[in-house]
Amino acid sequence: MSTPPRQILILGGGFAGVYTARYLEKLLRPEEAAITLVNRENYWVYQPMLPEVISGSIGITNVVSPIRRFCPRTNLVMREVEDIDLKNQVVTTSPGFRPRQLRLQYDHLVIALGSVSNFYGMPGLMENAMPFRTLADAIVLRNHLIHVLEEADVEENPELRAKLLTFVVGGGGFSGVEVMAELNDFVHAVKKNYLRLRDQPHRCVIVQADDRILPEMSETLAAFAHKILRKRGVEVLLGDRLVSATSERAILQSGIEIHCKTLISTVPSAPPPVLRKLDCEKEWGKLLVNTGLELKDYEGRVWALGDCASIKTVAGTRVPPTAQHAIREATTAAINIAASVRGGKRDEFAFEGLGTMGSLGHGAAVAQILGIKLSGLIAWFLWRCIYLMKMPGLNRKVRIATDWLLRLLFPPELAQTKVAPEPSIKKQHFEPGDIVFHQGDLGDNVYVITEGECDVLREQDGSQRLLATLGHGDYFGEMALLSDKTRNATIRARSAMNVLIIPKFDFNSLRENVPAFGDVFSQLAKRRAFAGQQHSGLGSDAGRVDP
Amino acid sequence: MSTPPRQILILGGGFAGVYTARYLEKLLRPEEAAITLVNRENYWVYQPMLPEVISGSIGITNVVSPIRRFCPRTNLVMREVEDIDLKNQVVTTSPGFRPRQLRLQYDHLVIALGSVSNFYGMPGLMENAMPFRTLADAIVLRNHLIHVLEEADVEENPELRAKLLTFVVGGGGFSGVEVMAELNDFVHAVKKNYLRLRDQPHRCVIVQADDRILPEMSETLAAFAHKILRKRGVEVLLGDRLVSATSERAILQSGIEIHCKTLISTVPSAPPPVLRKLDCEKEWGKLLVNTGLELKDYEGRVWALGDCASIKTVAGTRVPPTAQHAIREATTAAINIAASVRGGKRDEFAFEGLGTMGSLGHGAAVAQILGIKLSGLIAWFLWRCIYLMKMPGLNRKVRIATDWLLRLLFPPELAQTKVAPEPSIKKQHFEPGDIVFHQGDLGDNVYVITEGECDVLREQDGSQRLLATLGHGDYFGEMALLSDKTRNATIRARSAMNVLIIPKFDFNSLRENVPAFGDVFSQLAKRRAFAGQQHSGLGSDAGRVDP
Repeated sequence: MSTPPRQILILGGGFAGVYTARYLEKLLRPEEAAITLVNRENYWVYQPMLPEVISGSIGITNVVSPIRRFCPRTNLVMREVEDIDLKNQVVTTSPGFRPRQLRLQYDHLVIALGSVSNFYGMPGLMENAMPFRTLADAIVLRNHLIHVLEEADVEENPELRAKLLTFVVGGGGFSGVEVMAELNDFVHAVKKNYLRLRDQPHRCVIVQADDRILPEMSETLAAFAHKILRKRGVEVLLGDRLVSATSERAILQSGIEIHCKTLISTVPSAPPPVLRKLDCEKEWGKLLVNTGLELKDYEGRVWALGDCASIKTVAGTRVPPTAQHAIREATTAAINIAASVRGGKRDEFAFEGLGTMGSLGHGAAVAQILGIKLSGLIAWFLWRCIYLMKMPGLNRKVRIATDWLLRLLFPPELAQTKVAPEPSIKKQHFEPGDIVFHQGDLGDNVYVITEGECDVLREQDGSQRLLATLGHGDYFGEMALLSDKTRNATIRARSAMNVLIIPKFDFNSLRENVPAFGDVFSQLAKRRAFAGQQHSGLGSDAGRVDP
Repeated sequence: MSTPPRQILILGGGFAGVYTARYLEKLLRPEEAAITLVNRENYWVYQPMLPEVISGSIGITNVVSPIRRFCPRTNLVMREVEDIDLKNQVVTTSPGFRPRQLRLQYDHLVIALGSVSNFYGMPGLMENAMPFRTLADAIVLRNHLIHVLEEADVEENPELRAKLLTFVVGGGGFSGVEVMAELNDFVHAVKKNYLRLRDQPHRCVIVQADDRILPEMSETLAAFAHKILRKRGVEVLLGDRLVSATSERAILQSGIEIHCKTLISTVPSAPPPVLRKLDCEKEWGKLLVNTGLELKDYEGRVWALGDCASIKTVAGTRVPPTAQHAIREATTAAINIAASVRGGKRDEFAFEGLGTMGSLGHGAAVAQILGIKLSGLIAWFLWRCIYLMKMPGLNRKVRIATDWLLRLLFPPELAQTKVAPEPSIKKQHFEPGDIVFHQGDLGDNVYVITEGECDVLREQDGSQRLLATLGHGDYFGEMALLSDKTRNATIRARSAMNVLIIPKFDFNSLRENVPAFGDVFSQLAKRRAFAGQQHSGLGSDAGRVDP
């Protein structure tokens, strides 16, 4: 008589995904449904508090909650979703320790994969702009901030020091404002521990495309927030946006260039690539669903929620991508899945939102709840109370409250929690005039030009001479590595240029073990040394490259 | 009348280094001495508590203390020491954001660089054994443990699952025992959150070269510790040692092989490579100092302390590398440096140790203090009290006490704090018979053989056929990457084999941008396809390679 339990598969472990699993555990018995959730991490992030990881107000692991404990009956698969086959009802995930993919068959599917950063058409952003979505992003940013402060403290060159002490955030919505507020608080608080930075100014800039920050809120509250930020030393550039970036500069649409070593981008976002291949109706790339949150043509089988879905309420309001909405979407989806499994009443999504809140850093916030507008300390207090209350589980609540208490008593953490950096082959972008390396620098990388041109310059007796121009497919930087000397020429980008950077360790490993690879560079080095002698009467690593 | 302050340079931020800086700040006025400390990290690790990071008993950043706050007057340089020039009194550090080294001139030098792992003559240990010295090591290990548990939960193959649930620690001294105790506690505590692992056994093995564990303590206490460990399910293999390792196995001197995905090695250690070049008297590679802790021929100028120094007390006892000794060495060095700067009484190292303590995990420890031996719960309580008391700073004391309290109330943390993995070119070791990859696996890497030989095998109709044997300088694995298909042969090591692994992303980047590199592999692939057809009548990626 008994039928096997239905296979319910949930993709994504954000608010939408984990709350769907949690509701389903309550609605359906183990004999009725086996629930599986696929997520890159084994925790879900309590997004509203994520910026507090930057300043260490909240401990790294306290801002996340292990999915296994939140949804104890759900099978968690800690992998990446690589393919969704709607026709055959199969999802394929990335391999684990063994190089084999995992194929998961489903009866009911919930797609809640969120969104990803989208830097298409913005050269250099992918390489140089730090995203701020995941716990990993927050940890990387925190460690990066400590790194630039440490380097600024050692740096003698005032220009480079200023660059190290400049912080730019692209995007003036909630996410951008909260990240900048926390970053600014943190730098302020710890600068006094750096003997040479105490009296150095630092610069914080928010770049916002709109004509005001916090477009999610009323104009008065946004104006209040703007005033607070300005009072705390944050510059806000309105009506402008990032168009490109290098490792040294953020370049804006207006032509403004900000020299900085820290660039964070909270915009723009796009649905994850794995959804692009899906053969179903979409709106701006997002999966179009009905008010039951079902995918068209897959009703009763596939649901889409959260940031990757295009949702309207029964009243016709477009649903914003916030946590409070995601949690209600999860309820609707879970009820409808349960109805598909065992019959019963179905639900339609009708939640219109309770309000919005944004933190402006220690002791200030803005809130707009059920029509009431609040700002300053009282909004900040409300912010903390509401989010702490909404945080599920006593464990987290106690830990976060403890963190906040300790933060009132002691200065913020200053230890970098970086694991050993593993340099690897990567891409980089340079704008015209950028210096790739200076004559006299240590040889740490070899470069391959994938796009654009650069000049090879020799500084001698105070003057600079053009030795050669290199273009697409040319290599440079090998001489210093082959001879283990410092760079004997300066490389300057002539046009916008993209390169592939091969670090010393990788270069040497390949050279020793793939002879043909080494030959390319040794022959090039010989030709250059010869050309260099002809040009300058000196050994040189920069003659014209014969094509 | 005023002379410029003396430049005092301290290398290393362990107990010895930071306590020297701290004492010097008290002994000398800013006009008398400028103190600079070079350390890879901006914090110092409270080593005795480091194992507790594994189980999350203590929060990641609470087990470390920011050097800038502990030694507020000291200039911290967060770099690596690359060269020490004793003759010219200059130390060179690694570059920061700019590829330029930093040269630091000194009047007085303190070398306290600790020790590093030394896997010389132990093939595969470097690639596969995880060290346990730094906070980064502890974080990496913790994340790795969570990763293997997640994978074990998904894995259907019982052999691989058993491998994922086997944990081996090399070394049965304090460090090895404490790491294993914490690891075992952690796995026990969180296994219940893994639906498929609840009833699966896990295996913990300590491999110790001596005929007993904890050689630092009395035999009765060591026997007690051994009993406790055994009771908690830890196997102890005495009189044996690690000789080699692969990514799947730990191989012991006795011939025993333990199939495991987690291998931690706490032995053996050696002085850091930068000291090898130093032209001064040494003992087993350690810097030989007098009872004033001065380097011979550099008295009044250079001091060496901690694990990298060979020290005897005035009474002639050899000084062990422990924190309590390092702190007293720092006092002696600081007094003697102050005496060199402004005259005064000099000190000689006479500390003979107060005792030893080792934690055996939650609720058990062994201690031997001022001749009194304690074990069990009372020793554990004493352990916590003493180390908490000795932890400097109210901030840390409160935070750690809070962590311990919360740990009594709630289960340990389960969130992985991993930042995005960056695969890069790396080395790997295989023992005879090891499978590098299986026919049907995904193509994720290309391999270059740097030493040894392997067989190329084709599985067909249930039988296995040898297609070719590859040796030094040969490449394999390129076909699956070039054609984006799965592996169509199995590769098995014929002898002990070392390879260079080039990940897919790096391989494709190089192939597209360095044509000569790509040509090597496309030509090889063509030859192999042809040879494969001749051999088997099928397209194949594994024919004999023409030299």
